[in-house]
Amino acid sequence: MNDARPSRGTPPAQPGGLVISLDAMGGDKGPQAVVAGLEHFLGAHPDARVLLHGPEGVLSPLTRKLGERVTVVHAPESVAMTDKPSQVMRNGKDTSMWSAIDAVRDGAAQAVVSCGNTGALMALSMLRLRKIPGVNRPAIACLWPSLNPTNFNVMLDVGADIRADAEDLLLYALMGTSYARQGLGITRPRVGLLNVGTEEHKGRQELKDAHELMEEAAPRGDFEFVGFVEGGDIPSNRVDVVVTDGFTGNVALKTGEGTATLISTLLREAFGRGPLSKMAGLLALPSLQQFRRRVDPRRVNGGVFLGLNGTVIKSHGSADATGIAAALGLAHKLGAAGFAGRLAARVASAVAIAQDEGLADGGPTPADGASAPGEREQS
Amino acid sequence: MNDARPSRGTPPAQPGGLVISLDAMGGDKGPQAVVAGLEHFLGAHPDARVLLHGPEGVLSPLTRKLGERVTVVHAPESVAMTDKPSQVMRNGKDTSMWSAIDAVRDGAAQAVVSCGNTGALMALSMLRLRKIPGVNRPAIACLWPSLNPTNFNVMLDVGADIRADAEDLLLYALMGTSYARQGLGITRPRVGLLNVGTEEHKGRQELKDAHELMEEAAPRGDFEFVGFVEGGDIPSNRVDVVVTDGFTGNVALKTGEGTATLISTLLREAFGRGPLSKMAGLLALPSLQQFRRRVDPRRVNGGVFLGLNGTVIKSHGSADATGIAAALGLAHKLGAAGFAGRLAARVASAVAIAQDEGLADGGPTPADGASAPGEREQS
Repeated sequence: MNDARPSRGTPPAQPGGLVISLDAMGGDKGPQAVVAGLEHFLGAHPDARVLLHGPEGVLSPLTRKLGERVTVVHAPESVAMTDKPSQVMRNGKDTSMWSAIDAVRDGAAQAVVSCGNTGALMALSMLRLRKIPGVNRPAIACLWPSLNPTNFNVMLDVGADIRADAEDLLLYALMGTSYARQGLGITRPRVGLLNVGTEEHKGRQELKDAHELMEEAAPRGDFEFVGFVEGGDIPSNRVDVVVTDGFTGNVALKTGEGTATLISTLLREAFGRGPLSKMAGLLALPSLQQFRRRVDPRRVNGGVFLGLNGTVIKSHGSADATGIAAALGLAHKLGAAGFAGRLAARVASAVAIAQDEGLADGGPTPADGASAPGEREQS
Repeated sequence: MNDARPSRGTPPAQPGGLVISLDAMGGDKGPQAVVAGLEHFLGAHPDARVLLHGPEGVLSPLTRKLGERVTVVHAPESVAMTDKPSQVMRNGKDTSMWSAIDAVRDGAAQAVVSCGNTGALMALSMLRLRKIPGVNRPAIACLWPSLNPTNFNVMLDVGADIRADAEDLLLYALMGTSYARQGLGITRPRVGLLNVGTEEHKGRQELKDAHELMEEAAPRGDFEFVGFVEGGDIPSNRVDVVVTDGFTGNVALKTGEGTATLISTLLREAFGRGPLSKMAGLLALPSLQQFRRRVDPRRVNGGVFLGLNGTVIKSHGSADATGIAAALGLAHKLGAAGFAGRLAARVASAVAIAQDEGLADGGPTPADGASAPGEREQS
């Protein structure tokens, strides 16, 4: 943040088509990669419009060929990977991240995508969009390649907060259910609670309490509770939504990514050794490519922030054009489904029931974004 | 446990060669698989002798062809996967697991291997072998395929206890250092503390405290402290020993295994589709097999219990002959290195230093096995 000129503010929503708000800055590969991903995305989604936030002098030359569907919104500063969230909350008004989030807050866009600093993005999103009434801790949900018919499972929280109590975990189950429905089209998702053993007596106290809460909530929450699951079940066909705290979920996510990286490195080594192996590798190329497409982390790029009045998607900081396009595609899908409103309605309904039954202690928390109504059956 | 006949007790140690104590019961594939693994192991280790614990009527016919190097120790009962640890501690005297552990306690064997119920094995090991003075929570360490020159990293705790405070984590670092030395031959291991971010301000309080303790202990502990590491570093070449609590470690371990299973399933599918892919698959077979050997979890089978007066190795419950042979091979290696004694000496030395400096509050805990002396530089 080295420039104090005020940003121009968000232009009014464009008529027709869905609008996605995109933070051009903060990714490891710079705005060029973001714009390249944007170009892919526009080709695949002829109805979409994009508000691109960042310094006009940098972005205008890059976006000239993209035509009228892209509007550059000037924001002179950007959030660095090393910036502390508290610092960005105090002094970040002129950053592209702030500007991109405010476009959703103001109703000018239906979802926002950023490759920037996760902590700052979550802090600014909470500040500007506010939590849904009833949600104490928002969560980040990711898609995990799996043996399911949809090819993916949902896991949350993968890093919004390092703690979660039993009530938070129950809300994660409800929010994960909404995401599996709108994001993967699964009508009645199977929800599992991550633990070190599948027997009910194992694990920490908050997990035992959460087990009980989820069992009670499942019939009304339109999900099937499969009980405790273990790390090995995350990529399996036993479950659609895996619920855990953000510390464990983040370690699991990165361990899975690290394992996939190790395996692909060793595979490449194995096929690179000796002329026969090299020939086999060439012949195997279509199989290997098909395989790679299936597990390519760039194709499932995009952690979704759940529990806020608005859809926020965190792209990997190191995402390339393919990764950016995937995150934009996810934003488009969720924006088109009215995801944020449906999720808010689902949470509101669960909180209302809990209050009727005297289970919940807290009332709605202050929020300034209105929760759009959504049919509960479909939320 | 359905038979109350008393076991015969452990025979005296055999002269010459190393003796491994092996629990024949409790594995998913039955004593046949255990004996098949034992046969592989004996072929590869001509100096080794084995005490095989279980019902004589079952084991004697299976072991007849193995010759004099195998001695069957009659134990009429066995521990089931569903038995609770507390139950086994009270009523398990006649089980093969109890008998196998007691052979190490009595000095008749240098290490024990079991495929049985992890909780019961840890509970009985603590009861019969006792914790090393200074260790509050024993840990289970596993070998993780990695890009390191040794092909493996050590991770602990992967499931002995779901909690660990800062002092426990420091002891895990010291014990993991001993294991990396004796098990992998790394003179000065690089130790990392698992966290969700590599920045020092992130994570739970006990991790910040442990970071400080490890930084202080590294010079005297003969390890290099690399600070916080993330899930993606577990299979990397950044670190040799990854320290974490048993909940997180167990989730990470099973997530890694699950990811590897997913990838191998998808690879098999990719190579099975269409005649060209099948042909490529056949040609690629040597490369794939070489790759598979490198990451085959059966070849790194064996979680080592650290912090007890004796070496205990937990084999995977579903281990086949290859897996059992690998666990026995590891037991042989650690037994030959006098591992348990060296580790005890290292811990004793660290506790003594901490007490001198007024850092530790607890004195030695009651223990009935003597800690064998070991050179600290090599422990």
